[in-house]
Amino acid sequence: MAETAPWITYRPELKVLDCTIRDGGLINKHQFTDLVVRAVYEACIEAGIDYMEVGYKNSVKSFPKADFGAWRHCDEADLNRMFPGHDADKTGLKLCAMADAGKSDYRTQIVPRSESVLDMIRVAFYAHQVSEAVEMINYCDKLGYETCANLMAVSNVEDVEIDTVLSAIRETPAQVMVIVDSFGYLYREQIDRLYKKYSKALEGTNKDIGIHAHNNQQLAFANTVEAIILGSNRVDATMFGLGRGAGNCHMELLLGFLRNPKFKLRPVIKLIQEHILPLKQKIDWGPSIPYNISGQMNLHPREAMEFREGADPDNYLAFYDAIVQDI
Amino acid sequence: MAETAPWITYRPELKVLDCTIRDGGLINKHQFTDLVVRAVYEACIEAGIDYMEVGYKNSVKSFPKADFGAWRHCDEADLNRMFPGHDADKTGLKLCAMADAGKSDYRTQIVPRSESVLDMIRVAFYAHQVSEAVEMINYCDKLGYETCANLMAVSNVEDVEIDTVLSAIRETPAQVMVIVDSFGYLYREQIDRLYKKYSKALEGTNKDIGIHAHNNQQLAFANTVEAIILGSNRVDATMFGLGRGAGNCHMELLLGFLRNPKFKLRPVIKLIQEHILPLKQKIDWGPSIPYNISGQMNLHPREAMEFREGADPDNYLAFYDAIVQDI
Repeated sequence: MAETAPWITYRPELKVLDCTIRDGGLINKHQFTDLVVRAVYEACIEAGIDYMEVGYKNSVKSFPKADFGAWRHCDEADLNRMFPGHDADKTGLKLCAMADAGKSDYRTQIVPRSESVLDMIRVAFYAHQVSEAVEMINYCDKLGYETCANLMAVSNVEDVEIDTVLSAIRETPAQVMVIVDSFGYLYREQIDRLYKKYSKALEGTNKDIGIHAHNNQQLAFANTVEAIILGSNRVDATMFGLGRGAGNCHMELLLGFLRNPKFKLRPVIKLIQEHILPLKQKIDWGPSIPYNISGQMNLHPREAMEFREGADPDNYLAFYDAIVQDI
Repeated sequence: MAETAPWITYRPELKVLDCTIRDGGLINKHQFTDLVVRAVYEACIEAGIDYMEVGYKNSVKSFPKADFGAWRHCDEADLNRMFPGHDADKTGLKLCAMADAGKSDYRTQIVPRSESVLDMIRVAFYAHQVSEAVEMINYCDKLGYETCANLMAVSNVEDVEIDTVLSAIRETPAQVMVIVDSFGYLYREQIDRLYKKYSKALEGTNKDIGIHAHNNQQLAFANTVEAIILGSNRVDATMFGLGRGAGNCHMELLLGFLRNPKFKLRPVIKLIQEHILPLKQKIDWGPSIPYNISGQMNLHPREAMEFREGADPDNYLAFYDAIVQDI
């Protein structure tokens, strides 16, 4: 291969976001030990990662504290306990949290940026919730935060609805709009089509387009690379792919691919070795056949997750037969 | 998503080749039970797969029968025992074997097609062995076989050498030339570049271009899809990805993606359930971190395989440190 191949260079503006604790918490109700959360934080800093999404700002009414760990709510007290005196300038790492439309009491849960260790709020929403999402983005922007719009499960949204959402988000101060493949359904021609659609709709706004891929069909890393090729400068990944269902784009694959020398692979592998592999003994994630099938069929991973938590999680044929019969 | 998206259609000429036993045999010295080989054969027929590569026609001198199973040599007696009276027309499945340049006594091991259940010989070779490969292709063609040229480890071959190989293969009767990513190094822009190079060099010959991907970076399926998008009509995959090192493109992902109704997914999942998952208890394959790293570094999977067979196979950090130090 020629030494001058384009992949040897890099775009310095490409930013990596780790959402291990946020997305991974969807499979263990955010019951992570402080040790693990802190270890992910330190690995992010050492690895040169740009953002760490530490959890959700979700309502305690919907997600009672008796059942869910601290990172489902990201109370400021917990943030200050876990990341005391966090300094984004010194560490190179910005912290962020996700707030779901319909599931967060954002007017009381989110304090001004100047009073928080958080620098960004990512607003996650389904297409029908776009008006609330716009309100949330405007609200968080006024509090001083960077903001990001995550239209979830885009593979299940009609083209015309995507267009409407993009028009609405275009008018907000959100710096980023993310292509979110919640069901792990998309392959590269669909990523291309969505990227071009997002790009055209947001033209001239200076907004970045992000990518958040799930690994149902072993395509999370490939789809992330595809978005990068197209110009995406905001990229989500998780340590060892830890995340809901089939998991996410693996951080160790992503950093091994990126050519910016600021990114370091060893701290990520060390973290996986010491803290993530032990979790793998307790909770299930990754592209096993039930997730392959739900991804291929453009289904929410709910049924596959229930199956993998059930009595006979490796009976792939039973899952296939049940799902095919169901459709 | 629009119902008229191009992926809803299919190319009837696209042919799928299963190389589970051939490639998988590289991790267990082809010590498969007859039960497993027969089960793969029956699953291929039921699933509508076009070719099954049953093993190597490799020399017994280099691969003694005391150490290696029958499918390292594919003696006609073994073929007739395992696939008695095999009929490609009736089953829709053609059988083939691979012969390596430098490792096969092809003039004595390969009998005329009319005397064998095999329909195709795939000739595998490194760039420096291209002259022997051409001889082998011509020889097998004269015996009546379909032939296929597999230049291995192409990510490690200089551009000018690839050009020379393509010029030599162009003049042979081989119906197919395969892009072989032995090290699992390539990502989609490189697949594109190689596909265009192969395509241009073979223009006007009516040869098909094939794809044989390894899964070191979880890109085997994505790279296979990419080749299909570009026009590849010969596609390799294995059941549950069973194959050397990180394994191959998973058949269950591929068939779930293809839109030709002749392909059936259920027999593949049934086979995996009954025969491949039990193998997973005994032999290791799949994109674990040592294979991620060797893929990223464009290395032969040898070191990663040794590591995974060693005393501390999950000590990924130790592998990383050893390899980085070594470079």
